[in-house]
Amino acid sequence: MATVLAGVIPRPHAPVEVRELPEPELEPDSALLEVALSEVCGTDVHLQQGRLEGVPYPLIPGHVSVGRLSKIRGRLLDITGRPFAEGDRVTFLDVHRTCNACWHCLVAKATTRCPRRKVYGITYGLADGLAGGWAQKLYLKPETRCIRLGDVDFEKFMAGGCALPTALHAVERAGVELGDTVLVLGSGPVGLSVIIFALMRGALRVLCIGAPERRLEAARQVGAAATLNVETSDEETRVRWVLEHTEGRGADVTIEATGAPIAVVQAMRYTRDAGRVCVVGQYTDHGEVSLNPHHDLNRKHLDVRGCWGSDFSHFYRGVRIMADPARSEAWSLLKLDRYKLGEANEALADVAAGKVTKALIAPQA
Amino acid sequence: MATVLAGVIPRPHAPVEVRELPEPELEPDSALLEVALSEVCGTDVHLQQGRLEGVPYPLIPGHVSVGRLSKIRGRLLDITGRPFAEGDRVTFLDVHRTCNACWHCLVAKATTRCPRRKVYGITYGLADGLAGGWAQKLYLKPETRCIRLGDVDFEKFMAGGCALPTALHAVERAGVELGDTVLVLGSGPVGLSVIIFALMRGALRVLCIGAPERRLEAARQVGAAATLNVETSDEETRVRWVLEHTEGRGADVTIEATGAPIAVVQAMRYTRDAGRVCVVGQYTDHGEVSLNPHHDLNRKHLDVRGCWGSDFSHFYRGVRIMADPARSEAWSLLKLDRYKLGEANEALADVAAGKVTKALIAPQA
Amino acid sequence: MATVLAGVIPRPHAPVEVRELPEPELEPDSALLEVALSEVCGTDVHLQQGRLEGVPYPLIPGHVSVGRLSKIRGRLLDITGRPFAEGDRVTFLDVHRTCNACWHCLVAKATTRCPRRKVYGITYGLADGLAGGWAQKLYLKPETRCIRLGDVDFEKFMAGGCALPTALHAVERAGVELGDTVLVLGSGPVGLSVIIFALMRGALRVLCIGAPERRLEAARQVGAAATLNVETSDEETRVRWVLEHTEGRGADVTIEATGAPIAVVQAMRYTRDAGRVCVVGQYTDHGEVSLNPHHDLNRKHLDVRGCWGSDFSHFYRGVRIMADPARSEAWSLLKLDRYKLGEANEALADVAAGKVTKALIAPQA
Amino acid sequence: MATVLAGVIPRPHAPVEVRELPEPELEPDSALLEVALSEVCGTDVHLQQGRLEGVPYPLIPGHVSVGRLSKIRGRLLDITGRPFAEGDRVTFLDVHRTCNACWHCLVAKATTRCPRRKVYGITYGLADGLAGGWAQKLYLKPETRCIRLGDVDFEKFMAGGCALPTALHAVERAGVELGDTVLVLGSGPVGLSVIIFALMRGALRVLCIGAPERRLEAARQVGAAATLNVETSDEETRVRWVLEHTEGRGADVTIEATGAPIAVVQAMRYTRDAGRVCVVGQYTDHGEVSLNPHHDLNRKHLDVRGCWGSDFSHFYRGVRIMADPARSEAWSLLKLDRYKLGEANEALADVAAGKVTKALIAPQA
Repeated sequence: MATVLAGVIPRPHAPVEVRELPEPELEPDSALLEVALSEVCGTDVHLQQGRLEGVPYPLIPGHVSVGRLSKIRGRLLDITGRPFAEGDRVTFLDVHRTCNACWHCLVAKATTRCPRRKVYGITYGLADGLAGGWAQKLYLKPETRCIRLGDVDFEKFMAGGCALPTALHAVERAGVELGDTVLVLGSGPVGLSVIIFALMRGALRVLCIGAPERRLEAARQVGAAATLNVETSDEETRVRWVLEHTEGRGADVTIEATGAPIAVVQAMRYTRDAGRVCVVGQYTDHGEVSLNPHHDLNRKHLDVRGCWGSDFSHFYRGVRIMADPARSEAWSLLKLDRYKLGEANEALADVAAGKVTKALIAPQA
Repeated sequence: MATVLAGVIPRPHAPVEVRELPEPELEPDSALLEVALSEVCGTDVHLQQGRLEGVPYPLIPGHVSVGRLSKIRGRLLDITGRPFAEGDRVTFLDVHRTCNACWHCLVAKATTRCPRRKVYGITYGLADGLAGGWAQKLYLKPETRCIRLGDVDFEKFMAGGCALPTALHAVERAGVELGDTVLVLGSGPVGLSVIIFALMRGALRVLCIGAPERRLEAARQVGAAATLNVETSDEETRVRWVLEHTEGRGADVTIEATGAPIAVVQAMRYTRDAGRVCVVGQYTDHGEVSLNPHHDLNRKHLDVRGCWGSDFSHFYRGVRIMADPARSEAWSLLKLDRYKLGEANEALADVAAGKVTKALIAPQA
Repeated sequence: MATVLAGVIPRPHAPVEVRELPEPELEPDSALLEVALSEVCGTDVHLQQGRLEGVPYPLIPGHVSVGRLSKIRGRLLDITGRPFAEGDRVTFLDVHRTCNACWHCLVAKATTRCPRRKVYGITYGLADGLAGGWAQKLYLKPETRCIRLGDVDFEKFMAGGCALPTALHAVERAGVELGDTVLVLGSGPVGLSVIIFALMRGALRVLCIGAPERRLEAARQVGAAATLNVETSDEETRVRWVLEHTEGRGADVTIEATGAPIAVVQAMRYTRDAGRVCVVGQYTDHGEVSLNPHHDLNRKHLDVRGCWGSDFSHFYRGVRIMADPARSEAWSLLKLDRYKLGEANEALADVAAGKVTKALIAPQA
Repeated sequence: MATVLAGVIPRPHAPVEVRELPEPELEPDSALLEVALSEVCGTDVHLQQGRLEGVPYPLIPGHVSVGRLSKIRGRLLDITGRPFAEGDRVTFLDVHRTCNACWHCLVAKATTRCPRRKVYGITYGLADGLAGGWAQKLYLKPETRCIRLGDVDFEKFMAGGCALPTALHAVERAGVELGDTVLVLGSGPVGLSVIIFALMRGALRVLCIGAPERRLEAARQVGAAATLNVETSDEETRVRWVLEHTEGRGADVTIEATGAPIAVVQAMRYTRDAGRVCVVGQYTDHGEVSLNPHHDLNRKHLDVRGCWGSDFSHFYRGVRIMADPARSEAWSLLKLDRYKLGEANEALADVAAGKVTKALIAPQA
């Protein structure tokens, strides 16, 4: 019987184990993906630390992944109705089973809040099969939405990775307009992709407050006009810095991508009256924060928009943008670190420590 | 020399004094309004308590007011270019001098945040002339935007009063859609007008959490489908009550009109995923409140919109709606209490204590 | 073997025949609806006249219908996940198979343009089973979205019928704002429901240009402030009439619901500068019309919005509104005419001639 | 007495005359601009041909212009409140007197349709003073909104010229989204700036159909991915070309900037279902065009948006973008032709014939 090596988090706080698992039988209209690259993002760190609710341990992490279709049973179609063939280079929307039948899907049209929605590598566990990217092969269940990568370089695509649809969604939801000054809080993978998309969407200047210095350098490389180190500045300095860079008014748009609750209130304070704040960095519960609703929200006539998950349209457009050499150039500037399956714990530690910009798992290595 | 009696707050915390002031000379293109009714709203209480910033004491309170044009010098035109005549029954936009020349007016198109904006009875003080409605006559400076009331009953109009444009703005900004369940927090004048406008805009059901019982009765009279007393319920009860009235999801839209910081976070918690929250009750600094950005904002994919002030379009449409007998019927149900100029301190005390739904000053009485 | 009587259009231009058809075997998760009422709308007239493209004759007409679930095989769930039971009073979204897998569904989020979308009674023909409402029983295929009617009166619901979601969609897309003057072109079922929804959404005044007089009377009964007979007025009169009712500016919003190409350009001409036009009456090809893009569109800075079909959210909210006695009162004022299955040709003739406001088929009669 | 040379169109169809006019006395808070460059755009050709309504001949053409403030009387402030000084390099919003007092300004917030609005060089004639840019000096009336150019190269700025705010407005109104395929009809100055802004706003690919070949080359230079010559192709070819470049669906967004009525209907036909069309090329009456409202509008569920004029926000942001070396680079690629005042008739002829991409008047030459 054919077997597959996969990295498994057996339970919260336990280290990743590489296990040898049987290659699955394919249901009709399903497929196997030979994973070329998967990634290690902040969510994976949270998974290992047991910080997310409703995770069915043990699980194989790795949501956004790329590779080749090594086996197809039945029909697998792209959104234009064209069938995929074995050997095709693809990625896939890690969100599965948005039901198109519930109140959230059909009335609110808020599919990222569909209660039946499942995510490969996060809410699909080992019991659901080879449903994570930290594995030599990943099982693409029926109705998984695959997208052709054509000749897009796997590594460049993964420089965006799961941050790509998240950041595109955030920039779209923030409503960046031509000529805006956009402030990005956070310089991790999402923050860096937000900088790129904000510029692509017509921001005149993008400012970034983040850390550490190495990531701020990456922020400048991908286009940030100015950066400030959050770790070596105090709040007064930060406020003054923002005002100095915005003619004394605050940013037109601030996008929070940090994970720190305090950043949500800072985002409101750093934004001009009648501006927009998009909160996309609070994917895990890190506690509470105190705000002054008069000064921070009502009197400023702010728009504050939470931004949860992403849907096929964000992912699909992200892939198309990555397929365009000029549009995707900025992502080529990001430094990637590759880890083998057996090095997954090291990868998690490096991501947790902010040592690397972007960590990839290369399961075939 | 003709004189005018006016109620004056000499300085923060001091009681209102009735003073006899000289009737002013009119500049070109200005007018005198013989005030029939002005009002006493929460902002007036805050003015007397010294809770607002940048108030030029001494001042004559009273922003939204109605009456007859008793004298016009030069030309005073309505927005269709038709001149007003002495004797016309009018109201006027209490916001004056939105400059149409600054960054907020011209680039952000956020005129309610124009730094040169002045408000009769709030940021115009006695030094600026008879610039408040608690007076027998009010001086309409050049470029004050007057609106004909035609045969609209003065008292019915003042049942909306300054809450009218505020509430219309809030409901518009909240984006109420046909069939929505709207939750209103607060049952003061703004809350009551919000209920009426939310229903007028197509909400299927409006719920209201407020106090005291007398105001909740008013809320039901103007159309609230269900009400809950915030003073006699605990948070767990309130959450359960909201869920019970929203099929377990929370309100599609919540409009906060309370003045209590905690209500802003409650508004977020009482709202369904991907819903909208409009914050219009935090006109004064009442302190801070703690929220959980993961649970209350990001994960819910909420839109939280601060709503500051109102502009001519809100006021004008409010007047037009008041001129329609069917559309304005609900406001006729609100109980009004009239006070003479000499009873202004009593009026302030009654409003501060929530004893009355709406208090009016009748300066000619 | 149990049989079912159904009205069938065998081919374009042929009269409806009542046929006796076998009651179908149910697939898993499908059901039979005992049809209480279906309707005869303009689309049915077009179907009989062969004016629609891609219709698979022979077919059983009747898209929006109401009745009782007489048999269920497997599970049939509502959007909250609650199962339906035999005997439940329901309606269902006549649009079926919106695929949730194509570019239009997933990237453009324009599900009413999904190429795989099928409509009961229009693009499902007899070959697809008992897939139309002009039958004693209708076969609800798996994944048909049923909606509970509770104790909503069947007849009142059908007074809205298929016009209900269409009109709700049009009013929402037109973006009616509080205080708007809305002009409705057309006084057929869609026009009448548009009047009701425009008022429900906050229009201050609704004007209607239509015909014949009997329908204009219905327009006034459901709330139109003024009406004009299109058949007995010339264009100059109509323009003058609109300007007289809009302070010389034109309507804020015009919704075209006529079926006549000329009405689309009239809608643009009757609308104020920077207003909105929603075109919802051009469901069939009635030919071309000439417009002047400078005067009618560009210089006016107009928004012209085509509005095709409706989706579950429109239908579901329409049903909820119908379940509210106050909100749905206006529809009770509409006169309905009932026809038996054997009178379907008479019904079509009466609808085509504009003799009736709304014609219903009562298959059990 | 000091005199100024100016080009004057004495009456429709008459050639431009260079006249010597007295330098004006300055009113308080007005200024004189020493014009460095003005431009010759399609509107100027229409002015000379008498094709615009309400033009007060004789007039000095030239709306968007740049130069130095040579004299200031009183105070002239920028939108941050900072005073201008003599010698400052500036441009100014050619639209003047938007009244901030009428229904269109205050209720509809449609300032580009304010009936009191005046435009330098178009609706201000010689009787209004030196109110056009084809002159050595231009009189900046009180409340003209000037904008500092800092060290922005005059010529590069004028490569955008009046097309800059027009195109920015059109792209914003068209609602270009990240990843869109945008089709631009027309390759004149507006079309070329639309291409640049559409890419700046996140279009993945911009297609252009225009003429002549020289301008299509310019279109490709500023970023169009593909171009088609409208003069050497027939309609069938054009439709096929668009479908080939859009996966068979049509463009997500089409922006019409041609001046030909037929292009408005072509724009609708070349656009995908549920897409957006922005019509910005119909500034003059060139006659009627025939459309099929069923096929071209309703069934496609299109948004068709007329776009008239531009306001300060468009102009101001355009200037800011021009001040950014990277953002404004594309405009440097456009070929400009300079003409002296005495060569204005030649300039008009060259623009009318499409011989030049952009013609500038250099009044000091």
